[in-house]
Amino acid sequence: MAGVVPGEPFGEFERIRRFFAPLAGPGGLGLLDDAAVVDCRAGQRLVVTADSIVAGVHYLPDDPPDLVARKLLRVNLSDLAAMGARPLHYLLTTALPAALGPDWVAEFARGLAEDQRRFGIDLLGGDSVATSGPAVLSLTAIGEVAVGMEIKRNGARAGDLVWVSGTIGDAFLGLALLRGAYPQLAPEYRAGLIGRFQVPDPRVDLGRRLAGIAHAMIDISDGLIADLAHICDTSRVAAVIALPSLPLSRAALGVVDGEPGVRLALATGGDDYELLFTAPAGSTQAIDDLSSVLGLPITRIGKIESGEGVRLVDAAGRTIPIDEPGYRHF
Amino acid sequence: MAGVVPGEPFGEFERIRRFFAPLAGPGGLGLLDDAAVVDCRAGQRLVVTADSIVAGVHYLPDDPPDLVARKLLRVNLSDLAAMGARPLHYLLTTALPAALGPDWVAEFARGLAEDQRRFGIDLLGGDSVATSGPAVLSLTAIGEVAVGMEIKRNGARAGDLVWVSGTIGDAFLGLALLRGAYPQLAPEYRAGLIGRFQVPDPRVDLGRRLAGIAHAMIDISDGLIADLAHICDTSRVAAVIALPSLPLSRAALGVVDGEPGVRLALATGGDDYELLFTAPAGSTQAIDDLSSVLGLPITRIGKIESGEGVRLVDAAGRTIPIDEPGYRHF
Repeated sequence: MAGVVPGEPFGEFERIRRFFAPLAGPGGLGLLDDAAVVDCRAGQRLVVTADSIVAGVHYLPDDPPDLVARKLLRVNLSDLAAMGARPLHYLLTTALPAALGPDWVAEFARGLAEDQRRFGIDLLGGDSVATSGPAVLSLTAIGEVAVGMEIKRNGARAGDLVWVSGTIGDAFLGLALLRGAYPQLAPEYRAGLIGRFQVPDPRVDLGRRLAGIAHAMIDISDGLIADLAHICDTSRVAAVIALPSLPLSRAALGVVDGEPGVRLALATGGDDYELLFTAPAGSTQAIDDLSSVLGLPITRIGKIESGEGVRLVDAAGRTIPIDEPGYRHF
Repeated sequence: MAGVVPGEPFGEFERIRRFFAPLAGPGGLGLLDDAAVVDCRAGQRLVVTADSIVAGVHYLPDDPPDLVARKLLRVNLSDLAAMGARPLHYLLTTALPAALGPDWVAEFARGLAEDQRRFGIDLLGGDSVATSGPAVLSLTAIGEVAVGMEIKRNGARAGDLVWVSGTIGDAFLGLALLRGAYPQLAPEYRAGLIGRFQVPDPRVDLGRRLAGIAHAMIDISDGLIADLAHICDTSRVAAVIALPSLPLSRAALGVVDGEPGVRLALATGGDDYELLFTAPAGSTQAIDDLSSVLGLPITRIGKIESGEGVRLVDAAGRTIPIDEPGYRHF
């Protein structure tokens, strides 16, 4: 926690002592030292990733602070999961405007504490600074994976099947609801969709168990089509995806029933944080078994071919044009 | 580099491909994957630290971007040095306003590249987002230290001597010069002092070689007195420091000669990024030898006693009151 400045708004030392030191694991040295220590177990390799979120770009400034914290943590855990890694620790740097006082920080830290317990991880260190602009929150997550068992994006091969966990497009619809879209949607669906946007479920258990099964994997943040394109680009292969095969939640089906064109938007909307992976056809039974064990749908949505790019097809195999492969934040 | 959003100012993918991918080491997987991998050598432990800097708080918005990059990297390397660790890798997250275009980023990356070569480290990953506020730059540095050889803040013992590397207060004076102070200072001193503020020299070699010698160590970021207080607090000891013994550069002496009261400000000014450590009296010869080998002054400035707090004394041993133990950014 070097760089902490006495005399900043409500005291950085006090802020760390009250809110963040209780989150520190043994390697964090109470957040009282220049750096933290991380032990590596024999035969393991560490996996590291970092993501930043900005108020007004990646979340709404008046979103509940505990949900902001949990989303920040979870998008990073999702990256670790996409490598097949087990999460261990994280570092956090916050640049906060003066308007966010102790109450906001207390709620933010409460969200971290809740998810630390849930995922069995701890805080190692970080930094806390002031900004005159919107809050910028950066998190570095550290996990471990057995040497050689990490699942990269570049391993997809022609003949692989393409699979996705959970359901697709819920977070996209949740964000749309927050912006006032679909006022006609049944109330029982609304909270679930908004929850998928605000607090994603990183597929940590699934990711670890896919080591040795998946050839290539990514977590869906930019949108299913765009993220599959990342796999295809780095693996130098093509993919064909059947739009009707995409797994949708009952809530999403509730929207699609009234407006069939939305289905395409769900394939390109982002923030799903589901795992998208390729595996040889011979792994189908193992994947179905994993789905049963974890109680999590894992759906076959297409296949890998030689060539390049992602082609989306309808039930009759006709190509569906994609105008917007990526995803833009609000 | 998850979370990268196509369609952001001048293309995040393009920005990463052009400017940051060339900085990636083998574990960074070309910045094309969800996360990076870090191997641990047998008998080694990883050391991690993170710091953030904000335009207008920790550096001036029109500071040269390569110097901003090098300072950001170096303050983190200084934290690793203060643990006795050898630097290996880093992750970087940038939140940039739209006004900072490709030219700024190119210069920023050039500064990183220069210091990567100098310190033998590489980039593992990170994130790149947009903000409507001032730039916020966060860096996580990863190093290694032999298991059990890390130097913490809490190991100081009564009877230890207190040592500091290099010279103290140059960065404080460099910042003062940038703000227009000391217009009478001789021109030959000005660039050196400003350079100490803009691009600190993390004492990486010294830090590693102090493993097995130093009982407690910290790098000076908040100011010599404040940082020594951190050692005393966590070690539950007191320190007595002789103000006249503080090592000053010729440039700093040039200021102090005209204005003796400045000497106290140099002891409390921050951003020195020198190593401040305690060691038993029996290590004096080893420390002097290190100083010779590295061509770096290492000066004995006081001693550790039982009790609490830091007491500053003059040449006659009289206590000098300290009004301002910490350090405030501009």
